[in-house]
Amino acid sequence: MTYDHYFSAALARLHAEQRYRMFADLERIAGRFPHAIWHSPSGPRPVVIWCSNDYLGMGQHPKVIGAMVETATRMGAGAGGTRNISGTNHPLVELERELADLHGKEAALVFTSGYVSNDAGIATIANLLPNCVIFSDAWNHNSMISGVRRAGVEKKIWHHNDVGHLEELLAAEAPERPKLIVFEALYSMDGDVAPVNRICDLAERYGAMTYIDEVHSAGMYGRRGAGIAAREGALHRIDVVEGTLAKAFGCLGGYIAANADIIDAVRSYAPGFIFTTALPPAVCAAATAAIRHLKSSQWERDRHQERAARVKSVLNAAGLPVMSSETHIVPLMVGNPETCKQASDLLLAKHGIYVQPINYPTVPRGTERLRITPTPYHDDELIDGLAEALVNVWGRVKLPLQHHAVAAE
Amino acid sequence: MTYDHYFSAALARLHAEQRYRMFADLERIAGRFPHAIWHSPSGPRPVVIWCSNDYLGMGQHPKVIGAMVETATRMGAGAGGTRNISGTNHPLVELERELADLHGKEAALVFTSGYVSNDAGIATIANLLPNCVIFSDAWNHNSMISGVRRAGVEKKIWHHNDVGHLEELLAAEAPERPKLIVFEALYSMDGDVAPVNRICDLAERYGAMTYIDEVHSAGMYGRRGAGIAAREGALHRIDVVEGTLAKAFGCLGGYIAANADIIDAVRSYAPGFIFTTALPPAVCAAATAAIRHLKSSQWERDRHQERAARVKSVLNAAGLPVMSSETHIVPLMVGNPETCKQASDLLLAKHGIYVQPINYPTVPRGTERLRITPTPYHDDELIDGLAEALVNVWGRVKLPLQHHAVAAE
Repeated sequence: MTYDHYFSAALARLHAEQRYRMFADLERIAGRFPHAIWHSPSGPRPVVIWCSNDYLGMGQHPKVIGAMVETATRMGAGAGGTRNISGTNHPLVELERELADLHGKEAALVFTSGYVSNDAGIATIANLLPNCVIFSDAWNHNSMISGVRRAGVEKKIWHHNDVGHLEELLAAEAPERPKLIVFEALYSMDGDVAPVNRICDLAERYGAMTYIDEVHSAGMYGRRGAGIAAREGALHRIDVVEGTLAKAFGCLGGYIAANADIIDAVRSYAPGFIFTTALPPAVCAAATAAIRHLKSSQWERDRHQERAARVKSVLNAAGLPVMSSETHIVPLMVGNPETCKQASDLLLAKHGIYVQPINYPTVPRGTERLRITPTPYHDDELIDGLAEALVNVWGRVKLPLQHHAVAAE
Repeated sequence: MTYDHYFSAALARLHAEQRYRMFADLERIAGRFPHAIWHSPSGPRPVVIWCSNDYLGMGQHPKVIGAMVETATRMGAGAGGTRNISGTNHPLVELERELADLHGKEAALVFTSGYVSNDAGIATIANLLPNCVIFSDAWNHNSMISGVRRAGVEKKIWHHNDVGHLEELLAAEAPERPKLIVFEALYSMDGDVAPVNRICDLAERYGAMTYIDEVHSAGMYGRRGAGIAAREGALHRIDVVEGTLAKAFGCLGGYIAANADIIDAVRSYAPGFIFTTALPPAVCAAATAAIRHLKSSQWERDRHQERAARVKSVLNAAGLPVMSSETHIVPLMVGNPETCKQASDLLLAKHGIYVQPINYPTVPRGTERLRITPTPYHDDELIDGLAEALVNVWGRVKLPLQHHAVAAE
């Protein structure tokens, strides 16, 4: 008996729905970000990356690379074990202290990825609260949904960023029943921000615990890069902050920060933490270097916002359908998976510009988009080149340009 | 409302059961493995690590460190995105080719950890087989259990390594129903090995797919380090090989290798793969260097087995309760969590020897043990020192020594 046909049929379904994904084989060049080499089917070609989640370019910062290289040279490649079995390495202990300090919490715990930190963190916390009910924003990331499912407790989905609906759901529960509100600070596919203080108001009124995902905001917002909750002055009102080392901090791994008992309990009870090898010392040291740098340097954050604003304004002026966004994310609506992929393919093949198509399941069907992420290292010339290329591609794939009043200014 | 008491109560339960875990803060020293520095509460102290899962010391191999340092210098720290969104880096593409070749399969897929590769791999494969039933060895690792649970399909647990029981369960199912057998090649807490060919016989007889976890065997067994299935001549009979880059290969990450359609389907359907940042280029390059080295060098494998045999023989001669093991794992039975922790603490504090206590939930209650993992770099002097220290500690914690006949030889 062969099962091959099940797998080939599963792939055929993706092709039929125009959402079969091809990964671009990229080679980053330290010191030249966002320039990179694309290993195309016909050989290596230079490209400009316009969709990186290395939002601040810290993955190529000399302090970060320096820490990685120095630590690998001194301590070797891997950690050598799980946290419990010889894997807890000194740079990892220091990293956890740095993260606790960043978010103003007593302690922090590092996981191998942000996905696992949400998956294991939410499930473990919810399971330690008897008869817990989870309130989850409808747009929460797949990793949070996975954590909610893994918890196996009752869940209520509130309409995205709708505190009225959240309050309705909270009020319907018995006051003494443990409640956990889980939400993102910044939703990465649209670039909108949660009403953090209003959520905290409700959490206090109805006695709920709060769990915020700062994956797309830590390092980039708030004093010292502590994130959106910090910017809103709400950090002390949040029970658990979750974040990543793989985006603004340019490395790999995820974490939660909270009071000492919560962290110790997750450390002690989460299978996804206990049974996995610790992050390599060199990766931890690199992440610590990035966090420390961004605690004191405001330049990256200011330049990041300024570049994002410029990209939005230039693309808007060119009549491109920039979706409204309060943050550094610049989504361009396409609305069709095939056109979205065509546009992305043309940008890469004809213009050496790499912007990945964002299709279902990352965004809802019918809202397929190009998601542009300007960094401090995208200069004016690159921005103008992007706008020109996009206008050209929009014409080729027969998408409309919006010639609104502002274009006449 | 505060939830603090739930978390402190959860921690109190662990203390009461004597299974609250303390992590030793270690600093590895490249080139001096298994020697390391322990950041103890009273300051740094030299220790010898006897429980590392860097089984062959590849984490400190000059080729591995060299690849990591060179790649970080050239390409920076992080990958910068998920596999789909700018994170697929050239060293990662090369690593997947190397892994496919190692296990004689068409393709391979890398995850951020072995835990995630099992959790996402098993669940995704099972979910693509309509009405699938999973047959899981009773001793399977937590990550495999998590994958089976996540699949949400019917499961049958067969007695550990008992092919008679497995056959009974297989025979009870309708012939046309899709079946997936998941098991480990080498069980890491006891060091015993699965009857791979007999399991494959049953898989063929009853039309089941086979999924083998070679986490504790890849790199260490079989020609070119392809693992236990390769050593048994059964690699071509296995549908999916799962392994890790964090043990014999000394780095971080996990993988599966299989035919092209299976890999492509998991790549396309597994949320735990899709929504997570790719491994850093430098980690991938380091892992590739380790795999390539172990494909051609037999020295590490031979020396590893020779060292393990010597440790078993010396500890046995000293009357210590070495559990029977066919492999490089040398477990010493203690049978009580408190004594196990005491013995481990004494070894560290009095003898500078680090062997982590292995308590529930990693092993069943009542089978708590010290799990010793000799590497090619543990010389005779270190082995003799370990035996002396253990005999001393066994006396202090009042555990019996076995003065059997062999001691008189």
